Amino acid sequence: MTTNHDIFCEALTRSGFAPYGDIIELKNVPDKLINSGKCGRHHDLATLDFGIDGRAGISIFKSELCRFPYQLTLLERHPEGTQAFVPMAWSQFLVIVAPEKDSRPRAFLTKPGQGVNFHRGVWHGVLTPLTEPGLFLVVDRIGDTPNLEEFHLSTPWRVLAG
Amino acid sequence: MTTNHDIFCEALTRSGFAPYGDIIELKNVPDKLINSGKCGRHHDLATLDFGIDGRAGISIFKSELCRFPYQLTLLERHPEGTQAFVPMAWSQFLVIVAPEKDSRPRAFLTKPGQGVNFHRGVWHGVLTPLTEPGLFLVVDRIGDTPNLEEFHLSTPWRVLAG
Repeated sequence: MTTNHDIFCEALTRSGFAPYGDIIELKNVPDKLINSGKCGRHHDLATLDFGIDGRAGISIFKSELCRFPYQLTLLERHPEGTQAFVPMAWSQFLVIVAPEKDSRPRAFLTKPGQGVNFHRGVWHGVLTPLTEPGLFLVVDRIGDTPNLEEFHLSTPWRVLAG
Repeated sequence: MTTNHDIFCEALTRSGFAPYGDIIELKNVPDKLINSGKCGRHHDLATLDFGIDGRAGISIFKSELCRFPYQLTLLERHPEGTQAFVPMAWSQFLVIVAPEKDSRPRAFLTKPGQGVNFHRGVWHGVLTPLTEPGLFLVVDRIGDTPNLEEFHLSTPWRVLAG
């Protein structure tokens, strides 16, 4: 039985995700062929923003897996910078975002070869890989000042595969 | 029959690769547990440097595969910035670097879960994935000024699996 606290996954598409961030994926055609024509460069796929006090950094996150139905109990956001996640395996993951912390979230299911870059300040769920190894390359803000707000939901949302 | 123009692959290790760049991989222990303890953050794994006129950008490269023995005929370098490559699949790739453009190159074979970040100005071979899909997340300099030097080798090096 479903309730109005159920959220069904949508496919991750550029138009659906645009208010929340960028999809990091191949374009239809590369911007440039390099390496004597052997390699296509799909150029500058995310709007990066690390504020005045921050700088870009590359990290790896290793996360526990999630399973459907997924109980969403925590949202977070980073007021000082964008945050990009790209799986280090050819795998799908779940991406949850919310227009406001107390509004109805949306859940997107990626395809292999897709990553996301959350705009600065966008409320999102924590990392939710569906398959091993649960490793993500992360490009986000490195800085000394606080950059995390968390919001614990009093009533969890139940995210279903759709 | 091997010749003195053969190069045998080495495993990619921190000490071996240090003169050329950073290895992007999990640390032995994460710097921080996040997401209510469900996720380990392995923090700030590469020294990024995009010069005065550049900025960080995220791109995807899709490259043809290479096979052993690999004929190395081209080296390149980027005088204005570092360049990081991380496979978007759980796969190995070949990394070739050279102390100088006319010196003996070194070839490293990665393990799944490893990427590299070439220091600014380091001579390296073009992207050489060994397995499909040949996709790499790239973090490098976005800028308007030239940032590529190529060197065509008059005598190719032959790179062997080792």
